[in-house]
Amino acid sequence: MSTKIGFIGLGIMGRPMAQNLMRAGHKLWVHGRRPTTMESLVMEGAQGCGSAAEVAAHADVIFVMVSDTPDVEQVIFGAGGVIERARAGQVVVDMSTISPVETRRFAHDLAAKGVEMLDAPVSGGEVGAVNATLSIMVGGKEESFQRVKPLFDCLGKNIVHVGAHGAGQVAKACNQIVVGVTIEAVSEALSFARRNNVDPAKVREALMGGFAGSKILEVHGKRMLDHDFKPGFKVKLHQKDLRIVMETAHTLGMFLPGAALVAQQLNALIGLGDAELDSAAIVKNVEKLCGLDTPRS
Amino acid sequence: MSTKIGFIGLGIMGRPMAQNLMRAGHKLWVHGRRPTTMESLVMEGAQGCGSAAEVAAHADVIFVMVSDTPDVEQVIFGAGGVIERARAGQVVVDMSTISPVETRRFAHDLAAKGVEMLDAPVSGGEVGAVNATLSIMVGGKEESFQRVKPLFDCLGKNIVHVGAHGAGQVAKACNQIVVGVTIEAVSEALSFARRNNVDPAKVREALMGGFAGSKILEVHGKRMLDHDFKPGFKVKLHQKDLRIVMETAHTLGMFLPGAALVAQQLNALIGLGDAELDSAAIVKNVEKLCGLDTPRS
Repeated sequence: MSTKIGFIGLGIMGRPMAQNLMRAGHKLWVHGRRPTTMESLVMEGAQGCGSAAEVAAHADVIFVMVSDTPDVEQVIFGAGGVIERARAGQVVVDMSTISPVETRRFAHDLAAKGVEMLDAPVSGGEVGAVNATLSIMVGGKEESFQRVKPLFDCLGKNIVHVGAHGAGQVAKACNQIVVGVTIEAVSEALSFARRNNVDPAKVREALMGGFAGSKILEVHGKRMLDHDFKPGFKVKLHQKDLRIVMETAHTLGMFLPGAALVAQQLNALIGLGDAELDSAAIVKNVEKLCGLDTPRS
Repeated sequence: MSTKIGFIGLGIMGRPMAQNLMRAGHKLWVHGRRPTTMESLVMEGAQGCGSAAEVAAHADVIFVMVSDTPDVEQVIFGAGGVIERARAGQVVVDMSTISPVETRRFAHDLAAKGVEMLDAPVSGGEVGAVNATLSIMVGGKEESFQRVKPLFDCLGKNIVHVGAHGAGQVAKACNQIVVGVTIEAVSEALSFARRNNVDPAKVREALMGGFAGSKILEVHGKRMLDHDFKPGFKVKLHQKDLRIVMETAHTLGMFLPGAALVAQQLNALIGLGDAELDSAAIVKNVEKLCGLDTPRS
């Protein structure tokens, strides 16, 4: 059955996701802050809208895919935002990666208007968005999740309803902690090998099948060996996600020394001009301070 | 073809390994510091020896499986050690996990007597030793490796010749860095979930298939959820291995902040009386400092 869908935020992730929903036969109202981002979607039959409010006037399920917590607040609650034309029975599905704490507040404020919210951040990057193979971590009411599930199926594959409002963002934060700290682990191990004049490729091979084995050792470990830091997932985005983690740790009072270390590594990379590299570039910092800063030949 | 094999160090790991070599049809001369450890092997047909030197008088390939760097030095170079009866053409195969720096020195000193050395630390624990499924990381000359390879095949499955003398110990050190830092990663993520009132089991499930996926998330993550810290691999052994890593970092001048953090976590566990637990118990420290120290019901 065709659903009236709104899609706000048409960047590298949002545009192909909107396209996948449209190609599944749904009617779309779209809005991007830069009007040019709407053009290709309008040519495929979407209705371009001048504001998030205009999207809300037409759609029953409204997806949001923007950069950060203030952007989500702006498109939902700011001037010309969803809230101006929201009505009971709608669902706002925020697929951005933002603060779990603020997410709970947004869900609460939308509920006051009878509007349901799901937080549904993704992992899998641009490739996952284009190929509809995203992992989607969802927080919110079971009823809302069931209602939106057929639409999630147009966007991704591993779709888990983690828990109540904010639980999707919490799972995404956990994902970014594990990915970041495991990158640090592999960076230190491969640098340890090099500094001891042992071939890091051989070490990676020896470690792959055992308890040290991970997707990061496999994929990011290979990038480190080749010094190939084409993203992938950019340092500046990983930094943003770990800022959310550390802000949450600050708010709730938590001890996360590994995550804090990775946040500092990402800060340093940005200071050194490497914001656009893949976050596997953390190995560059470790190599520099292990006397290994010349690239391997 | 039957080889005359010596085996020194008959603890939890060494004894089943010696047994597997004997059951493959080889003649064994064995020595353990505690004479009782020899009894069952002697009943199966091994020759019990009063010293490491006596082992060296008979065997062509001499395995050593003891606890730490000074123990290896003692059984090879100490009073009654291998060196007293060593002769050209023998190979000493040290399967203990010890310092890569000292390993190179031992290999050099043995070579002065015409004795070859291989460093061949293992991972896989007692289960791997019993079932002959150990991963074996080998350093030393290719010729020695090829000579001992049929014997390694009696002990393990994933057998990698990593490089020159010490390279096996370097690979093992890398393994222990990655395992330790990944345990920290998973500990922080699951504690982050709990502290945000999100089911950590659901989060583990959501993370498993993606970039956060690892053997540690699978195995140790499950132990953390269940608070089941029966080893596995003991805190006190992991602490010893990270001491070797940090000593090497000190000697060579290396920046390994993740490994240093894990070394501190293990120190704290030992101070708190948890030396005999599996090193997944690192999560207990994180939970304590996240206000989560009551066990989950």
